[in-house]
Amino acid sequence: MMPEELARKAEVLVEALPYIKRFYGKTMVLKYGGGAMEAGGLKEAFAQDVALLWYVGIRPVVVHGGGPQIGVLLERLGITSNFIQGMRVTNPETMEVVEMVLSKLNKDLVCLINRQGAKAVGLSGKDAWLIKAKKMTLKGIDLGLVGEVEEVNVELIEALQQKGFVPVIAPIGVSEEGETYNINADTVAGAVASALKAEKLLLLTDVPGVYGPNKELIPTLSARDAEALIADGIIEGGMIPKVKCCIDALRMGVKKAHILDGRLPHSLLLEVFTDKGIGTEIVP
Amino acid sequence: MMPEELARKAEVLVEALPYIKRFYGKTMVLKYGGGAMEAGGLKEAFAQDVALLWYVGIRPVVVHGGGPQIGVLLERLGITSNFIQGMRVTNPETMEVVEMVLSKLNKDLVCLINRQGAKAVGLSGKDAWLIKAKKMTLKGIDLGLVGEVEEVNVELIEALQQKGFVPVIAPIGVSEEGETYNINADTVAGAVASALKAEKLLLLTDVPGVYGPNKELIPTLSARDAEALIADGIIEGGMIPKVKCCIDALRMGVKKAHILDGRLPHSLLLEVFTDKGIGTEIVP
Amino acid sequence: MMPEELARKAEVLVEALPYIKRFYGKTMVLKYGGGAMEAGGLKEAFAQDVALLWYVGIRPVVVHGGGPQIGVLLERLGITSNFIQGMRVTNPETMEVVEMVLSKLNKDLVCLINRQGAKAVGLSGKDAWLIKAKKMTLKGIDLGLVGEVEEVNVELIEALQQKGFVPVIAPIGVSEEGETYNINADTVAGAVASALKAEKLLLLTDVPGVYGPNKELIPTLSARDAEALIADGIIEGGMIPKVKCCIDALRMGVKKAHILDGRLPHSLLLEVFTDKGIGTEIVP
Amino acid sequence: MMPEELARKAEVLVEALPYIKRFYGKTMVLKYGGGAMEAGGLKEAFAQDVALLWYVGIRPVVVHGGGPQIGVLLERLGITSNFIQGMRVTNPETMEVVEMVLSKLNKDLVCLINRQGAKAVGLSGKDAWLIKAKKMTLKGIDLGLVGEVEEVNVELIEALQQKGFVPVIAPIGVSEEGETYNINADTVAGAVASALKAEKLLLLTDVPGVYGPNKELIPTLSARDAEALIADGIIEGGMIPKVKCCIDALRMGVKKAHILDGRLPHSLLLEVFTDKGIGTEIVP
Amino acid sequence: MMPEELARKAEVLVEALPYIKRFYGKTMVLKYGGGAMEAGGLKEAFAQDVALLWYVGIRPVVVHGGGPQIGVLLERLGITSNFIQGMRVTNPETMEVVEMVLSKLNKDLVCLINRQGAKAVGLSGKDAWLIKAKKMTLKGIDLGLVGEVEEVNVELIEALQQKGFVPVIAPIGVSEEGETYNINADTVAGAVASALKAEKLLLLTDVPGVYGPNKELIPTLSARDAEALIADGIIEGGMIPKVKCCIDALRMGVKKAHILDGRLPHSLLLEVFTDKGIGTEIVP
Amino acid sequence: MMPEELARKAEVLVEALPYIKRFYGKTMVLKYGGGAMEAGGLKEAFAQDVALLWYVGIRPVVVHGGGPQIGVLLERLGITSNFIQGMRVTNPETMEVVEMVLSKLNKDLVCLINRQGAKAVGLSGKDAWLIKAKKMTLKGIDLGLVGEVEEVNVELIEALQQKGFVPVIAPIGVSEEGETYNINADTVAGAVASALKAEKLLLLTDVPGVYGPNKELIPTLSARDAEALIADGIIEGGMIPKVKCCIDALRMGVKKAHILDGRLPHSLLLEVFTDKGIGTEIVP
Repeated sequence: MMPEELARKAEVLVEALPYIKRFYGKTMVLKYGGGAMEAGGLKEAFAQDVALLWYVGIRPVVVHGGGPQIGVLLERLGITSNFIQGMRVTNPETMEVVEMVLSKLNKDLVCLINRQGAKAVGLSGKDAWLIKAKKMTLKGIDLGLVGEVEEVNVELIEALQQKGFVPVIAPIGVSEEGETYNINADTVAGAVASALKAEKLLLLTDVPGVYGPNKELIPTLSARDAEALIADGIIEGGMIPKVKCCIDALRMGVKKAHILDGRLPHSLLLEVFTDKGIGTEIVP
Repeated sequence: MMPEELARKAEVLVEALPYIKRFYGKTMVLKYGGGAMEAGGLKEAFAQDVALLWYVGIRPVVVHGGGPQIGVLLERLGITSNFIQGMRVTNPETMEVVEMVLSKLNKDLVCLINRQGAKAVGLSGKDAWLIKAKKMTLKGIDLGLVGEVEEVNVELIEALQQKGFVPVIAPIGVSEEGETYNINADTVAGAVASALKAEKLLLLTDVPGVYGPNKELIPTLSARDAEALIADGIIEGGMIPKVKCCIDALRMGVKKAHILDGRLPHSLLLEVFTDKGIGTEIVP
Repeated sequence: MMPEELARKAEVLVEALPYIKRFYGKTMVLKYGGGAMEAGGLKEAFAQDVALLWYVGIRPVVVHGGGPQIGVLLERLGITSNFIQGMRVTNPETMEVVEMVLSKLNKDLVCLINRQGAKAVGLSGKDAWLIKAKKMTLKGIDLGLVGEVEEVNVELIEALQQKGFVPVIAPIGVSEEGETYNINADTVAGAVASALKAEKLLLLTDVPGVYGPNKELIPTLSARDAEALIADGIIEGGMIPKVKCCIDALRMGVKKAHILDGRLPHSLLLEVFTDKGIGTEIVP
Repeated sequence: MMPEELARKAEVLVEALPYIKRFYGKTMVLKYGGGAMEAGGLKEAFAQDVALLWYVGIRPVVVHGGGPQIGVLLERLGITSNFIQGMRVTNPETMEVVEMVLSKLNKDLVCLINRQGAKAVGLSGKDAWLIKAKKMTLKGIDLGLVGEVEEVNVELIEALQQKGFVPVIAPIGVSEEGETYNINADTVAGAVASALKAEKLLLLTDVPGVYGPNKELIPTLSARDAEALIADGIIEGGMIPKVKCCIDALRMGVKKAHILDGRLPHSLLLEVFTDKGIGTEIVP
Repeated sequence: MMPEELARKAEVLVEALPYIKRFYGKTMVLKYGGGAMEAGGLKEAFAQDVALLWYVGIRPVVVHGGGPQIGVLLERLGITSNFIQGMRVTNPETMEVVEMVLSKLNKDLVCLINRQGAKAVGLSGKDAWLIKAKKMTLKGIDLGLVGEVEEVNVELIEALQQKGFVPVIAPIGVSEEGETYNINADTVAGAVASALKAEKLLLLTDVPGVYGPNKELIPTLSARDAEALIADGIIEGGMIPKVKCCIDALRMGVKKAHILDGRLPHSLLLEVFTDKGIGTEIVP
Repeated sequence: MMPEELARKAEVLVEALPYIKRFYGKTMVLKYGGGAMEAGGLKEAFAQDVALLWYVGIRPVVVHGGGPQIGVLLERLGITSNFIQGMRVTNPETMEVVEMVLSKLNKDLVCLINRQGAKAVGLSGKDAWLIKAKKMTLKGIDLGLVGEVEEVNVELIEALQQKGFVPVIAPIGVSEEGETYNINADTVAGAVASALKAEKLLLLTDVPGVYGPNKELIPTLSARDAEALIADGIIEGGMIPKVKCCIDALRMGVKKAHILDGRLPHSLLLEVFTDKGIGTEIVP
């Protein structure tokens, strides 16, 4: 190797040093979904990143979404869905398909992470009653089995973390009466991060981050400014619930929240281990 | 209550006493499948029994089978299967359906046990690489993704048991290369019991137990006698692999194996906590 | 076995389930004395019950009384006693006899419990200064070495419980100056239950429970109602101190107190593990 | 204080130094009996010594004998005993008296040690089945309930030692069938020391130690030489079983055994913490 | 040995008993310096005392001073120093010599203690940033690298104590920026004792203790009285900072402080283990 | 940042991944000396590397040499030394200077590492008798206080590692009799690595590695080949003892030994965390 190349390698390793130190033993909750789950090679890069975090002593917890496979299977089974405000009205038959597809994706992701050398364990909110859920209440609208998080029971997550396992969670909740609910994965990630008092909540999305009034990417944003940008209509559409989810988590004790572009390979590593980071960070 | 009724109650409790003592802290692996998974009320009774074992300090591990739901979904999706020697030839498309259905059943069973007050956690062989599998080798026959157990990695099971959780395992394995395999649930139960050096392996079936030459139920059978009954053609058909699975487990250090009628409510309790037991026990 | 018989057995076991669950790891203090210590077979049934509680994960602590053997030995030695308000005036010579007889009974009871498979350890209030006592003060009356509990030092009990032993305690206390005192066993049981914040205090007596104004057995009684019944003269005689002892324990954090008929075999089991219980329970 | 006095004090403390170091955390079994239990002030000095050993990190275990109180009570009750070879023929009535007196002495000794600030716990061989015993077999002679040690179950002793308690043991054993036996206290001390692989077995007796052929006190004696002295008739009478008990303990792994004069105040301290020691030490 | 000699030995051991008990597991910080470091045999006696404290379960921490060796080496190197108010103005060149000599003395002392059988570990304030220091501020005077303690980081001391090591500390501190400072050893001992909430702070000096108005040695002094004696000019000169250091430590939670004559052999032992103690004790 | 730059950074981090995984929790012993201790900036880079190893869960142990400062101080003090076979004949006066300089360097290095955020603790072989040494024996030659390692007592190193501290060791040993010895730092590093069964022994030198017959740098060398190269005179001069030290360590259970160029900044990081490594590795 050329000396300059060695010097550059050493530089990257040295840059990563203070971050490895700062985050040692800390919990980071990663929401993984959308485009990052689909494009070739991105899944492997994500699994590699999760394993790297784990190797250097960080405790990652993954919450994943569902993706297009749900729609594909529903269609093959001839089940049609209505959508209200972007959410699928979920009857019991649909719920069963959603749960089957999520369970399959969950174990696939577990496998990918394990093949990178970490020890992942796939969970749904049903395991040890991890996510107590209830029917989502929307004025005058019945979305069926779409739920919201009532309580996150961290005992199982913490037991697995203590033994060095990486929990990978499918966004399914269950009510006191045993009813299964489909819950938005961002919301589950936020609730899990809050319950664990996580160091970071990282939402991997399909955009580079939050944009400001002049369409410029905003690197850092306070919770208060983020709310102002929503009120001013600058943050809009699908980004609103994501930003709100971050703000809620910060209020519950999460240290920092990030909205990253999951389509950029290794965006997780670059965010956590470089000085500039990427995407938008939201701070309390 | 009448005094005699009280006396009878006390008698049952006193009879259970030495068994509760003998099995305290011991691991029992339960294979749950077939008719016991279908008839109304039997699932709840099974979940209750698992919880009772757990309450009195026994460490149950459940391995479940698939049941008719797999066939139903395959049919709805228009996927046809060939069967060779009673085993479904499993192509990747079929495997995906099998995994989805098993994952769904797994979490349903977890939920039922949790509602009885225990803390169950659903796993497949993919979690923390619990079941390393390889393609099943049958002379001249290719069954596709039907696998056999290569190694059971008990670290995750023991971590969960130490923290008081009940592992519930779907019979799916994964190869070093990440290929998913469908494995016979009795075999998985036997391999898990062997790896854990379990106190008991209990196979819940659709028959009262093993029958002898005169069609009488045999309460106790040595491994050697069981082999003789197979050689003599007295144990036959679907009972052969079950009995062989028990014999193998005994050779690997499991203390006792049982073949019970899962259709009898609370057969598990009656076997474990009464003097006579029920079904057939096979001893080393 | 007949199916109905099996069903009935299963029913009893299933009925016991929620109680085994509820009381797992909890401490129960049992006062054992009077008729239950004398009749043939009752001692063995009591020892069996203590062992069963222990097997299912409950932590029993036994406090026993003295019984007629004290009188027998005093008589043989030609020592006469005066009684004031039903309490024996205890001079040093009498105290020595009381202590010798109690120590002997203590070890006999330990032996009986050990033979049922539990690991009992006999203690008096002198061991590790378990019961600090002082002279009982009664206006104008000197009862000699009759004492009352000043402090229960739970360190030894808890150390033994942690290692899985069953403490069996003789009702003897010792003052700071080393003076030995004879203390009422109900009082000791109540004080020990209070110091351990026990789940239950169970007093085994020679009557079926507390009777109401119409001579009917009262199954449940609040502490307040119990005080009213004493004030109204409905609870009377020897039952008064027993009920007061229960009320005091409830005030100190014991969850529930019971007055049972110790002459009924296995009354302990029936109280703890059946829905209806027996005798009278007093609740805060 | 005069400088010379200070220097002398410092010298004693410095002399004790290597012994405190050498014996830190080690178990010493002390047989306490005979004259040392009777003379005024000796009991207190013994209790002080036990507490000092405990304070400096040694783990004492005390085994005590019975003494003349047994005879006194037997006489008062009009029970006569035959003696064969110096051992009391023990019928059930006598055994009861022996057990009562020993239990009383046991708790008195516990009290004395506790008052010196240690935490003693009185045990008999019945507690947690500490001493399994059987009938002593002597050719053609029936001594009744005189027993010998079959097995010492150290679990309870070690549990108490770990928690910092000092076990004080009365020499009573119990058979598998629950029969109570009276055992020689030297023998019990030797068996307990063997089972604990004790650092030292110290027998406090009524003589200064073992005497040689010229009536000189022997400070150190090998097991082999001790046997020769017995064979030659130089060690004789009541000293024979004591020396044999020491030899047996050395064979079972005890490091050193001592025969001391218990009538000399603080003989225990002087033996353990001074260069010359006192009495006779027997080494493997 | 003569009986009277034995009795006297036993007496000293018995006198030490309550002190060994009282101080078990407690931390004592010893300032060692001045004449006690120089005279022949005194170092060995001090090392023996430290080891004895350690053997009986006390946790000693030693802070030592520099002594005349610093001046000797400075002179050999031709470095001259100015003194202001008895403190050496320390330039970087001088500081280097001070650090070298202290490090050498530190390891010599460690060696002496180890040879008595304890396990000593030599530290300076640089190890694990044990002593954060800053430049000493004196109005209008610049003493160069003479520092004062800003913070004592006890993590390393406690880790070593838990594992049974004896920390031996050289009085060197280091600032946030990495600057090395020379600090008065009495001050370091006081600060370490305060940070550890030590049971005792013992300053070994070259005088018998604190003297009162009539030149009589004062055995006990309250912090308040000590301040009065300073105000009245009775405590004067070099004794003032020592007494102030004791008073400060008492304010920070140290239980008792002592000023002893380090030139008296084994003064440490005599202070800690005898009823009268020696020197002057200062109490809160 | 440019995407390519991000990609390159991600690549370096991903390359480091398997090494971080492989070495997690493993001990690496680093010999630090020569040119790497002198040139500007190299000390800081070395300290940074030690801290990075520590941050990612590796357990570094540093052994350092002396360097030219020893000669400088000897000269200033007018002490002259003879050299035999490249080793300084060390009389007591010289030994004192060596120890003072090494102690000073030790604490300086500790300080540098601490300023990078790790928690280093400086030790010499005297602390807790870490390095038992004896006089080096060379036929017919007396080198004075030059010693060789007799035994490495790892208790202190392991205690510090368990608590997360980085031991930094000066190459000084001490004999049973308390004599101080100066030992070659490579030898100490090898002996420490052997005693700890280290994963790696890394010797930082002033050359790029071991050269072969054609003056080419050899990346990998077996112990056997290394011995052949010495026999053939290809490895020569000062490299011989370094290579022998590596071979010895491999024989004692060290997994791999490395000879690196300490003058290349961050050579440690590049060796440990990149695929090609740098310098020469010697394997068993």
